[in-house]
Amino acid sequence: MKAAIVMGSKSDLPVVERARGILKDFGVECQMRVISAHRTPQTAEAFAKHAEEEGIEVIIAAAGKAAHLGGVLAAYTPLPVIGLPIKSSTMDGLDSLLSIVQMPKGVPVATVAIDGAENAGLLAVQILSVKYPLLREQMKAYKQKMAEDVLRADQELQESIRG
Amino acid sequence: MKAAIVMGSKSDLPVVERARGILKDFGVECQMRVISAHRTPQTAEAFAKHAEEEGIEVIIAAAGKAAHLGGVLAAYTPLPVIGLPIKSSTMDGLDSLLSIVQMPKGVPVATVAIDGAENAGLLAVQILSVKYPLLREQMKAYKQKMAEDVLRADQELQESIRG
Amino acid sequence: MKAAIVMGSKSDLPVVERARGILKDFGVECQMRVISAHRTPQTAEAFAKHAEEEGIEVIIAAAGKAAHLGGVLAAYTPLPVIGLPIKSSTMDGLDSLLSIVQMPKGVPVATVAIDGAENAGLLAVQILSVKYPLLREQMKAYKQKMAEDVLRADQELQESIRG
Amino acid sequence: MKAAIVMGSKSDLPVVERARGILKDFGVECQMRVISAHRTPQTAEAFAKHAEEEGIEVIIAAAGKAAHLGGVLAAYTPLPVIGLPIKSSTMDGLDSLLSIVQMPKGVPVATVAIDGAENAGLLAVQILSVKYPLLREQMKAYKQKMAEDVLRADQELQESIRG
Amino acid sequence: MKAAIVMGSKSDLPVVERARGILKDFGVECQMRVISAHRTPQTAEAFAKHAEEEGIEVIIAAAGKAAHLGGVLAAYTPLPVIGLPIKSSTMDGLDSLLSIVQMPKGVPVATVAIDGAENAGLLAVQILSVKYPLLREQMKAYKQKMAEDVLRADQELQESIRG
Amino acid sequence: MKAAIVMGSKSDLPVVERARGILKDFGVECQMRVISAHRTPQTAEAFAKHAEEEGIEVIIAAAGKAAHLGGVLAAYTPLPVIGLPIKSSTMDGLDSLLSIVQMPKGVPVATVAIDGAENAGLLAVQILSVKYPLLREQMKAYKQKMAEDVLRADQELQESIRG
Amino acid sequence: MKAAIVMGSKSDLPVVERARGILKDFGVECQMRVISAHRTPQTAEAFAKHAEEEGIEVIIAAAGKAAHLGGVLAAYTPLPVIGLPIKSSTMDGLDSLLSIVQMPKGVPVATVAIDGAENAGLLAVQILSVKYPLLREQMKAYKQKMAEDVLRADQELQESIRG
Amino acid sequence: MKAAIVMGSKSDLPVVERARGILKDFGVECQMRVISAHRTPQTAEAFAKHAEEEGIEVIIAAAGKAAHLGGVLAAYTPLPVIGLPIKSSTMDGLDSLLSIVQMPKGVPVATVAIDGAENAGLLAVQILSVKYPLLREQMKAYKQKMAEDVLRADQELQESIRG
Repeated sequence: MKAAIVMGSKSDLPVVERARGILKDFGVECQMRVISAHRTPQTAEAFAKHAEEEGIEVIIAAAGKAAHLGGVLAAYTPLPVIGLPIKSSTMDGLDSLLSIVQMPKGVPVATVAIDGAENAGLLAVQILSVKYPLLREQMKAYKQKMAEDVLRADQELQESIRG
Repeated sequence: MKAAIVMGSKSDLPVVERARGILKDFGVECQMRVISAHRTPQTAEAFAKHAEEEGIEVIIAAAGKAAHLGGVLAAYTPLPVIGLPIKSSTMDGLDSLLSIVQMPKGVPVATVAIDGAENAGLLAVQILSVKYPLLREQMKAYKQKMAEDVLRADQELQESIRG
Repeated sequence: MKAAIVMGSKSDLPVVERARGILKDFGVECQMRVISAHRTPQTAEAFAKHAEEEGIEVIIAAAGKAAHLGGVLAAYTPLPVIGLPIKSSTMDGLDSLLSIVQMPKGVPVATVAIDGAENAGLLAVQILSVKYPLLREQMKAYKQKMAEDVLRADQELQESIRG
Repeated sequence: MKAAIVMGSKSDLPVVERARGILKDFGVECQMRVISAHRTPQTAEAFAKHAEEEGIEVIIAAAGKAAHLGGVLAAYTPLPVIGLPIKSSTMDGLDSLLSIVQMPKGVPVATVAIDGAENAGLLAVQILSVKYPLLREQMKAYKQKMAEDVLRADQELQESIRG
Repeated sequence: MKAAIVMGSKSDLPVVERARGILKDFGVECQMRVISAHRTPQTAEAFAKHAEEEGIEVIIAAAGKAAHLGGVLAAYTPLPVIGLPIKSSTMDGLDSLLSIVQMPKGVPVATVAIDGAENAGLLAVQILSVKYPLLREQMKAYKQKMAEDVLRADQELQESIRG
Repeated sequence: MKAAIVMGSKSDLPVVERARGILKDFGVECQMRVISAHRTPQTAEAFAKHAEEEGIEVIIAAAGKAAHLGGVLAAYTPLPVIGLPIKSSTMDGLDSLLSIVQMPKGVPVATVAIDGAENAGLLAVQILSVKYPLLREQMKAYKQKMAEDVLRADQELQESIRG
Repeated sequence: MKAAIVMGSKSDLPVVERARGILKDFGVECQMRVISAHRTPQTAEAFAKHAEEEGIEVIIAAAGKAAHLGGVLAAYTPLPVIGLPIKSSTMDGLDSLLSIVQMPKGVPVATVAIDGAENAGLLAVQILSVKYPLLREQMKAYKQKMAEDVLRADQELQESIRG
Repeated sequence: MKAAIVMGSKSDLPVVERARGILKDFGVECQMRVISAHRTPQTAEAFAKHAEEEGIEVIIAAAGKAAHLGGVLAAYTPLPVIGLPIKSSTMDGLDSLLSIVQMPKGVPVATVAIDGAENAGLLAVQILSVKYPLLREQMKAYKQKMAEDVLRADQELQESIRG
């Protein structure tokens, strides 16, 4: 099982790393690429066209501002594409979000929260888990662990109040 | 292969039908449900908890306003959940969109455009196609057909101008 | 008389503390909980279902981003639920606000200002004061004191100008 | 048990009527008033100051545009005030919503959805139910009935699909 | 000739001072007050009712969030009221702006830019200049001086480029 | 006493007429002009430069979209300029509002609500009333009449309920 | 001299026709195309790559929602690309506007108003007029004519008032 | 070949410098001016009227808040005008963007991203390249170089991962 994370600019790396961390934790092989929809459109096209035959099963596309990367990749591949809107220096990420989520009829991009890199990774895992039962079990364990973390935080709060 | 479409209110049906149309065209079995996150929370919980064992592999959740349905289902199931924001009578659907897409860390909802029911259906197909090669081929054909429709529209335009 | 303050994440504590401060000042017993609508949905359900029988009379639910906590609790309890939208790192809290205030017909959440924790506390007091006359008197005194604080600030300003 | 519904203009009546309908269904006595915060400020003040002694226990204030009515009433009374933002002809109700919900520290207004008149009524009932156990039971029955309505709609959908 | 500047909270003073500076430069007598529409409504009413007889000819009202101060004063006085929206910690001042500018029919508030304190002062001067010819001449000189400042900045830029 | 109403396009006339109606009711002489800041900039300049010497004492500028008319007139005249944002076919008037109200330091435009033509007229009257005591008295009577209209509406509502 | 107008969908034709009308009036040859960035990405690429050698000197790209067409064409051609945001059924065109105007560094798209088709045509003419002096003269005449239209509207208004 | 960059305030210089850097790199002569549409309207008019005869072929206008500079220049010149919205201290630049891009019919301003100074420069180059073939070739080389920069960043990422 194999995913790809494509970012529009190397400056997106700190955010995107958190998506890779999730994929790594679930044991999903992950190709990382810097490809700009606007500055390297040919590379974007080539990547998207050959993604399937290279064994990639889901793509995460991270981009900011007028964020076309996810849409451009989705235009060229039948694979599911996850869009990760990056918060830019103005507009608080609303421009990225609308550019990604409001895709016209025919070419969806599965959008997650602005700067929601972990969720992009988790969504990729959930999509792959349709095929790979092991990932499904890992996802259940992950959800269990998240719940335990919250329960522990709750318990600590109770103790700190009583204490 | 089996999907479910859950809507928060029966009034969402006209929009949601377009998602079902897509799934039907691709030969994906599709369960349709009216479940309200706020008025029937128990049913939402029960549905989400048992969705996997009933063979459902992907869920589309359509809701408007403070649209919690997708998030509530995603809380209870490890399956991928697609969020379809419904345009309500005020706020032009921005409330639905933000309530669905801005999910906090740990529980993603794959969000499509406001009232983007066809894209919700197509994204479900793309997700299922990770497992079912036939759907992948159908998706390629669908993309091919979409392209031909645009090319034909372009040709007709050329002719109407020349004519 | 007893209130509960539930926060979606322990990171909300610094904001939420200000609501607790108000309740404490008014002598309202206050249970503090960390419960996530998405990561611990079962706990949220259990808490909401048993809140009434545990003597809780009003609930403050603080959450950010796609803030479903208030709505989820309100789905399971007949108690009045106050929603406190937490400003997240993007969207300036607009996502939290709309996710909380735009609740669909049937299940209201009494929403206060973004990060308006004191007002959440004061609203809880006002709601309890419907039953407890002492709180009503304290609230009048509180309003009186607020007025005096403003009058004093005005006087100090006059003096600093004249001085 | 007694509530008041105040509207800033008689043109708000069609929306506000839905709040009154809820209160009537729950057997809550309900005073209806047209009072403008800007055109009849003295009346607003007098109403708010004497509301408590007239036996009113909760106030719903409905207004549009720069909607100050709720805040003005809340300034003069210790009673809980519910703010109902009315959608105006421009700005889709966002101006009303922000003018009501973003109250500064010290004077909360319990805000419901734009044009969410039923929820304003239900919130009033929930607030009163802190004192009146009968209303609490009625509210539970109401929630039960809402659930049944959704379940029936779901069932009808299943039948219409099978049929 | 006499103006008043009223601020909703002493924390607005640093912004408001810039309005006073303008009035001082034009030789307009200026009363400064801290009055809260919500915490000292009686004082607001008393101030607005007696402003005219105290010789005040124009009022600047500065407030943030759900900024009702301008509207409340305008409700009680026939004097022109200038609204100065203060940027609050969330919503970037949009809440203040809409709460002030979107006044319903009958009670206008003359709104200037968010945090635009100098412009509030200048607008007060322009309004007074309808009556006081000296202020009109001073305003012309002020406009002239502003123009010269820009021309000098332009000249300096030319020199810094050539240099 | 004399005012001018300038509109950016003849299509603004139906809205603008309501401002003229107010001025007429108060006996204020009123010049009506169609002048476009962008299509007839010379006329705008000439009008603004000579407005004062033609006896005009306050200007209402009505415009939509990127609404520069008020700012352009204010650049050329020391007279107070009232900006009336016209709702355009997209953006619900937010573009007009921000283009008018957010004027940079030095050149204020007194902005009223989107499509708030009556309030533009009333603000003009309030500004003129600084100089003309008769208008001040008329304004008080107008406020009185508004109050009576609301009181009557309230009374009618009481009767319709009782009846 | 030759321009191209590309629209993302044939449904954009009614808006786009107004841009063509302008180009026709100025005697600019104009190719009209329906090309979808997402459904016919190859055609978009081929069109953009060969636009220059086919003698096209400026491109107008009209699209709605997540409107990538302008950006995709601009990625493949050194020609100036004008972006025309089309108002879609939700979000009032804000999504189109931000998707087009907020292009990241390196690949500009010259954006005009939402549904501002005439302005897209006029901007194309202004760009071509850098090279073609005749267009410059026509543009001056056009501006003259616009001014005369406004002056005439003003005159008619004066007459209708006097009359 | 000659461009002009006009900024509304000297404080815009740090952003605007990046546009000048681009023009310099392409060998385009560039006049830099500080001209305020509101504080020096006469200078703005004079500049715009004589820009063509001074050999200027394209104008970049940078301004913030209610940013009228581009529109005012475009009103007086037939030259293409590029609008560069400057992010102001409030509203995140949305006010600047809408004030510039939403120009009414007849007078377009070619708008680029908020603070998108490089793109303003590049758009000026693209517009000039309609006439100057050398600039076209330079633009192709620039696009090539941008692509190589991205490809190198991608390669470095691959190496840093493998390494």
